[in-house]
Amino acid sequence: MTTPHAPAPGPAILDLASDPAELTAALIDIESVSGHEGRLADAVESALRELPHLRVHRDGDAVVARTAAVRSERVVLAGHLDTVPLPTVEGSRGTVPSSWSGQGDDRILWGRGATDMKGGVAVQLALAAALTQPNRDVTYVFYDHEEVDSARSGLARLYRNAPELLEADFAVLLEPTDGTVEGGCNGTLRFQINPTGLAAHSGRAWRGDNAIHKLAEVLSTLAGYEPASIEVEGLVYREGLNAIRIRGGVAGNVIPDSAGVEINYRFAPDKTLEQAQQHCRELFPGHELEFVDLSPAARPGLDRPSAAAFVAAVGQEPKPKYGWTDVARFSEKGVPAVNFGPGDALLAHTDDEHVSARAIRDCYRALQDWLTA
Amino acid sequence: MTTPHAPAPGPAILDLASDPAELTAALIDIESVSGHEGRLADAVESALRELPHLRVHRDGDAVVARTAAVRSERVVLAGHLDTVPLPTVEGSRGTVPSSWSGQGDDRILWGRGATDMKGGVAVQLALAAALTQPNRDVTYVFYDHEEVDSARSGLARLYRNAPELLEADFAVLLEPTDGTVEGGCNGTLRFQINPTGLAAHSGRAWRGDNAIHKLAEVLSTLAGYEPASIEVEGLVYREGLNAIRIRGGVAGNVIPDSAGVEINYRFAPDKTLEQAQQHCRELFPGHELEFVDLSPAARPGLDRPSAAAFVAAVGQEPKPKYGWTDVARFSEKGVPAVNFGPGDALLAHTDDEHVSARAIRDCYRALQDWLTA
Repeated sequence: MTTPHAPAPGPAILDLASDPAELTAALIDIESVSGHEGRLADAVESALRELPHLRVHRDGDAVVARTAAVRSERVVLAGHLDTVPLPTVEGSRGTVPSSWSGQGDDRILWGRGATDMKGGVAVQLALAAALTQPNRDVTYVFYDHEEVDSARSGLARLYRNAPELLEADFAVLLEPTDGTVEGGCNGTLRFQINPTGLAAHSGRAWRGDNAIHKLAEVLSTLAGYEPASIEVEGLVYREGLNAIRIRGGVAGNVIPDSAGVEINYRFAPDKTLEQAQQHCRELFPGHELEFVDLSPAARPGLDRPSAAAFVAAVGQEPKPKYGWTDVARFSEKGVPAVNFGPGDALLAHTDDEHVSARAIRDCYRALQDWLTA
Repeated sequence: MTTPHAPAPGPAILDLASDPAELTAALIDIESVSGHEGRLADAVESALRELPHLRVHRDGDAVVARTAAVRSERVVLAGHLDTVPLPTVEGSRGTVPSSWSGQGDDRILWGRGATDMKGGVAVQLALAAALTQPNRDVTYVFYDHEEVDSARSGLARLYRNAPELLEADFAVLLEPTDGTVEGGCNGTLRFQINPTGLAAHSGRAWRGDNAIHKLAEVLSTLAGYEPASIEVEGLVYREGLNAIRIRGGVAGNVIPDSAGVEINYRFAPDKTLEQAQQHCRELFPGHELEFVDLSPAARPGLDRPSAAAFVAAVGQEPKPKYGWTDVARFSEKGVPAVNFGPGDALLAHTDDEHVSARAIRDCYRALQDWLTA
């Protein structure tokens, strides 16, 4: 096993003409936990600069490569270079370097990022090399800091520094969807309700005012809440409203003067962020809501011609995306976006992250067909 | 200011014939934070051994001194030698050594233990020296480790090691009551309710089972609970039922699979510990209650002749004691017990603990009258 964040052993070389599953293994072997994407970004940039049909731009540890503007339509293929930290449990296979099991098309590739999302990045890179004359202009976007808080997002930084590089009619984010198209995504927000009271010795509780008891009504609302399922452009999004943290208490003999609960609302893309916030305020009248995280939902955009063509090419029934992904950033900028990538999203971040060679190759072929048909 | 727990500068000498307020100052100056009562216990033991009318026993850092058994009735005067730690805030007056402010009987004595309870201990010691032939046999009990968890209580240890030394018809605990008689005490118990659930990513909340939400019903019961006021032997005890801690949560994007609330019930002495526990179980049907602290209530015992005589001698209307004190230990052993001592209990453990010289002298005279009339 390599030591995490050890000094890099010189520049890494990527062969973009290799099979995309083999290329995935090579990408996994260049460890790139969030904040340490530099060596992988260098390798991606170097390999792309070898391709004469692409214009390559570097911004921090993000790399953008664009075909010359010759078609009437431009699409983005996007993926993040970073991974969550390596497993800490001894013997986990979802680590660095990668390893293989099985045979042929049933071979399984194990390693950190196998599903989230070096399989998708390998497909991007292989397409970038192979499609010298695609039927649509393509912008390949590789970015850093996706697995950490939103403020450090490499994609958000690109949108600030060079928004013109990201202009497009449609975007495909190669996050793992097991080869189906997942449209849009739920929004997510979190807020805290922090009632205050008056401390007192619990032997004379009537001199105090118990802040924990003031959460009774809030929890009752949560326990009784029936989350909606909402159809948007033919996809049904399931919402959720959940307490994710609760705290309160000073000592065993003190009436607590403060308490707090933090609540997560996952909302369907029929709502703007402001409408979602308003819904929460209406659910908890008389309480002050302190919002601590706000990420808008993304409409699937499946009514756009470019998206419809993509879905037709892939040939599978699209599904809604429940988790929040960067499709929301594209959607916010007016670029309809879907998730479509190899691997099972439920394996992401696990200690035994893996992906089949078949899934990577199938994804490659589907996108190749769409961009060459 | 002396350094806490500095090496003792040789044995301390107490003059039991001095004024009880001056004696209080001398006791404060012998620092005795819980676990460091040795030097004070030595001084108390030495001084008592000078008195030919008393038999003195030492057990750890507890000292018991008894008059010869010549009367038909025996009473206990009890107090603890230890204090809570010294104030940490610079400039606090409730520290060691003691200091005085004001003039004459209005003089105020400041220092750690001034109210809790070196004033009471000084009264005990002064009475022990002065009453060579009291009208009742008297057992003076001085003990360690009252201000820490119950398992280390010096009084409980005495009851284990030498229960015969504590036999009596009535006990007065000289805890601060501002000179009134406080009878019995509420019991106190704590229990936890710790529901479990099933963890899931909050983007797919329907795959999980939110443990925090299961506390809704518990908090509603607490918020709606009306604590009783219960009369026992003429004294009205106010009960209380309060959440004193609440916890739950894993991460901002995880449905929590565990949560917990800790609840304190202060109950009147009309109930046994078992009845109090049963009351709690009935309040929270369907939940498992994990009891973590159980201290019985003490009936005031004011219907006993010895107690009635004491109340008559002190000449003030008795009140209920809300906080739990060691009267419950005496009560448990069949010895009715009351709290009666100098100083305001609300000043106990504060950074500016103090007591008036008058309060100490008044307490001394009241007990002297009762034991000599």
